[in-house]
Amino acid sequence: MQIVSALLRIDKTQPTPVYQQIANDIICHIRQGTLKPSMALPSSRALAASLKVHRNTVVAAYDELYAQSWVDVYPKKGIFIAANLPEVTPRALVSDVNVKKLAYPEETHFNVCDKKLGHVRLFNPGVARSVTFNEGFPDTRLAPVELMLREYRRFANYQFTQKYLLYGPEQGSENLRTELAIFLSETRGLHVQPEHILITKGAQMAIYLAAQLLLGKGDVVIAGDPGYCGANEVFEQTGAKLELVPVDEHGIDLDAVEAICKKQKVTMLYVIPHHHQPTTVTLSSERRMRLLELAMKYGFAIIEDDYDYDFHYSSSPILPLASADYYGSVIYVGSFCKTIAPGIRIGFMVAPPNLIREATKMRRLIDRQGEQLLEEAMANLLKNGDITRHLKKANKLYHERRDIFCKLLREQVGDHISFKIPDGGFAIWMKYKNGLQPAVVAEKAAAMGLGISAGKDYYYDPDHSHQNIRLGFASMNAKEMEQGVDLFAKAIKKAF
Amino acid sequence: MQIVSALLRIDKTQPTPVYQQIANDIICHIRQGTLKPSMALPSSRALAASLKVHRNTVVAAYDELYAQSWVDVYPKKGIFIAANLPEVTPRALVSDVNVKKLAYPEETHFNVCDKKLGHVRLFNPGVARSVTFNEGFPDTRLAPVELMLREYRRFANYQFTQKYLLYGPEQGSENLRTELAIFLSETRGLHVQPEHILITKGAQMAIYLAAQLLLGKGDVVIAGDPGYCGANEVFEQTGAKLELVPVDEHGIDLDAVEAICKKQKVTMLYVIPHHHQPTTVTLSSERRMRLLELAMKYGFAIIEDDYDYDFHYSSSPILPLASADYYGSVIYVGSFCKTIAPGIRIGFMVAPPNLIREATKMRRLIDRQGEQLLEEAMANLLKNGDITRHLKKANKLYHERRDIFCKLLREQVGDHISFKIPDGGFAIWMKYKNGLQPAVVAEKAAAMGLGISAGKDYYYDPDHSHQNIRLGFASMNAKEMEQGVDLFAKAIKKAF
Repeated sequence: MQIVSALLRIDKTQPTPVYQQIANDIICHIRQGTLKPSMALPSSRALAASLKVHRNTVVAAYDELYAQSWVDVYPKKGIFIAANLPEVTPRALVSDVNVKKLAYPEETHFNVCDKKLGHVRLFNPGVARSVTFNEGFPDTRLAPVELMLREYRRFANYQFTQKYLLYGPEQGSENLRTELAIFLSETRGLHVQPEHILITKGAQMAIYLAAQLLLGKGDVVIAGDPGYCGANEVFEQTGAKLELVPVDEHGIDLDAVEAICKKQKVTMLYVIPHHHQPTTVTLSSERRMRLLELAMKYGFAIIEDDYDYDFHYSSSPILPLASADYYGSVIYVGSFCKTIAPGIRIGFMVAPPNLIREATKMRRLIDRQGEQLLEEAMANLLKNGDITRHLKKANKLYHERRDIFCKLLREQVGDHISFKIPDGGFAIWMKYKNGLQPAVVAEKAAAMGLGISAGKDYYYDPDHSHQNIRLGFASMNAKEMEQGVDLFAKAIKKAF
Repeated sequence: MQIVSALLRIDKTQPTPVYQQIANDIICHIRQGTLKPSMALPSSRALAASLKVHRNTVVAAYDELYAQSWVDVYPKKGIFIAANLPEVTPRALVSDVNVKKLAYPEETHFNVCDKKLGHVRLFNPGVARSVTFNEGFPDTRLAPVELMLREYRRFANYQFTQKYLLYGPEQGSENLRTELAIFLSETRGLHVQPEHILITKGAQMAIYLAAQLLLGKGDVVIAGDPGYCGANEVFEQTGAKLELVPVDEHGIDLDAVEAICKKQKVTMLYVIPHHHQPTTVTLSSERRMRLLELAMKYGFAIIEDDYDYDFHYSSSPILPLASADYYGSVIYVGSFCKTIAPGIRIGFMVAPPNLIREATKMRRLIDRQGEQLLEEAMANLLKNGDITRHLKKANKLYHERRDIFCKLLREQVGDHISFKIPDGGFAIWMKYKNGLQPAVVAEKAAAMGLGISAGKDYYYDPDHSHQNIRLGFASMNAKEMEQGVDLFAKAIKKAF
């Protein structure tokens, strides 16, 4: 019986308890056939001695095996591998398919609608560089993961947690909607009630739901160019027709919007009022009022994607369009993905209750409901003021980083690029001078270990010729920025 | 300065650290105006004494306030509320909107597509009853929440967690797809690779994605009646035409399916092969082979919704259709929502890689990606064997519960109902005898504190006359079942 202890490998540094490691290993050997049915196992005392663990540990392991029917216990005789193993083997299909020989098919034989999805760009982790200027992400090193985990630890209390483990409201946690209504009122002057709010998976799902509800084949939707391709792809997938308008230093061009409205029925307009993606401009207060008037006059819906509102450094943010929307034209979309971390997917849609009701039905069809535990954790973080506190700290730090980064750029590559200091957000929109080409600089930079945009994906037309790129600063500390700008300067020299 | 300590309320039983409670309270009073700019705060020693806390606690609170710019510190003079408070007040829109006076609009002025969503049924928590026979849910008291939390605790290690906080692959965690491929091979004879798998939010999202990819306006989709309304609603929302076929004791009627195929082009068929919702029947092995042949002959796709595969008591499960799908007709859909808990939303789609690629693009549009931390936790639970272990325990228990429940029903209400013992799953499909009406029994039961189905939502036509209901047993222990069946017997007597 010494063989049993020889088969088992115990690692006390593992998170899995030792008794479970023993039980797992024994199950594994039963399955593989090393340990046969009806074979005797050593006594708990003997096994404990040879494994150098406490006897109770082996007793617990044997209890576990017994509970799972892997062993039989005969009083005074000992413990044996079960004569009838509990493994359930699925019945094969009638025609005696030898599944082990089947290769899983590589192709469906029916067509999928790839015409609708041809342009969708998927995540590309890219080549690891020593330094990378990303497109503008928060610094996940600041993410309040500890706070999130503190909330998750509270869920260990079963009484508290039980109701969040079952099916729940498709509209999202009642607690979170209540806290969010207060937060939106305090920060954005949006005097909403929980029934005006739908909790989504990131701003992305809110945009998707709005598009599904309002757009059909051939409907016209207006967006800025350059703009956010992740929204444009959603609109086009519905079969809607995308009309693009220019973006200047005060935001999207409303004369161009009105010209389109005069020619055809417009169903929806998509706007990023703070720190337009990618150009970082803020839609001016005057244009906001005019945009609301145009929406009323021509009867279109506005999707106001204010994902960036909470990150302001130089000047105050401007109140959302939604805060002055008497008429019910605005669907306000926001996110905590930039507040906590992009990987923590919580966003929201704020709209009149009739639209929220329909959006909730659509959400039910898609994935039924959100993560209730995550939503409850988020509600507590808002309630305790943790989010406000984190935002203050992060704003202070990103403000400093923006200033350091702009100074470094001016000092070291100021002759070759131009940019305006953004009011907030996570990135700078810059333009190369002296005939420098984004793709060429990116290639030279990559060879030196610096990741930097080649200028693709900003304009709708991938062949649109321009000299702009986005440089994310928020996720880098001072040392990383120095390294990055140093390499950037060298890459520019080589790109001539 | 005694006023400051009088304003503060400390509760040491709260999860929020005391220093943070002090800081929060002070911020709150600054905001409310109780504490004015430039006002002196008591020394840390004095405040600690009057609050009866350690001096370091007050020092930490003051550090926090300083870090957030709420206080100024003047060496040798003391600590003061900041003269210039850091609060950022948003700029109002130009026309001087008094947002405080605005009521948020109650209605959008544009039409939403309510015709497509009219039938979607939303979550209804219902009236609390002392006992409820639900539609068949797992017992959340068994949910391995502790194990999930153990995995979450590991995320406190930042180095480990960092990459899961950023954007990640839309197809789902690589680790989870790898572990799931092994699990599917061991349990279902599905010899798939990670590239055949897309991780979704529950089986629901997998069904939604398949429908979005394959169905368009007017396309024909076949489903069983009675059937799962949550899938039917998804198909109809695409504009597809739903053709219903009967379900007998061996599953959906394939003669009826072939008759439809002979008359019109069929794009998709939806089937629940194990424990059909709601009738709990298993699609026989013979019908499975014939269904695959029909799919090849008539060129339709099969959505195989095998959400219930892992819960088998009497006989072995039958291998999935997908395991014998040489031709690439089957989209296999499953879920861990019944394994862990319905509120923990992890499901999957298994299909040939070309379909998975398109489904991944569609998923990117909807919500970009899943919860990476949850997916990593799930991957570890699969890897450690925790899921297999939990399934074994749960199956043993649910098997017992099924037997106890059937015995109770036969003994106490056997004269008034008929049912077949289901092979697995969470519920019994029963039929009233002697002219008893489901709605009448439900009404009498409700008056006595027993929640029970009134027989709605099983058939596509809400007015379809029948005497069947579903009785969930898995979530109830023996005592609860006894109580429930006792009340059920009384309700039946009153319903005559």
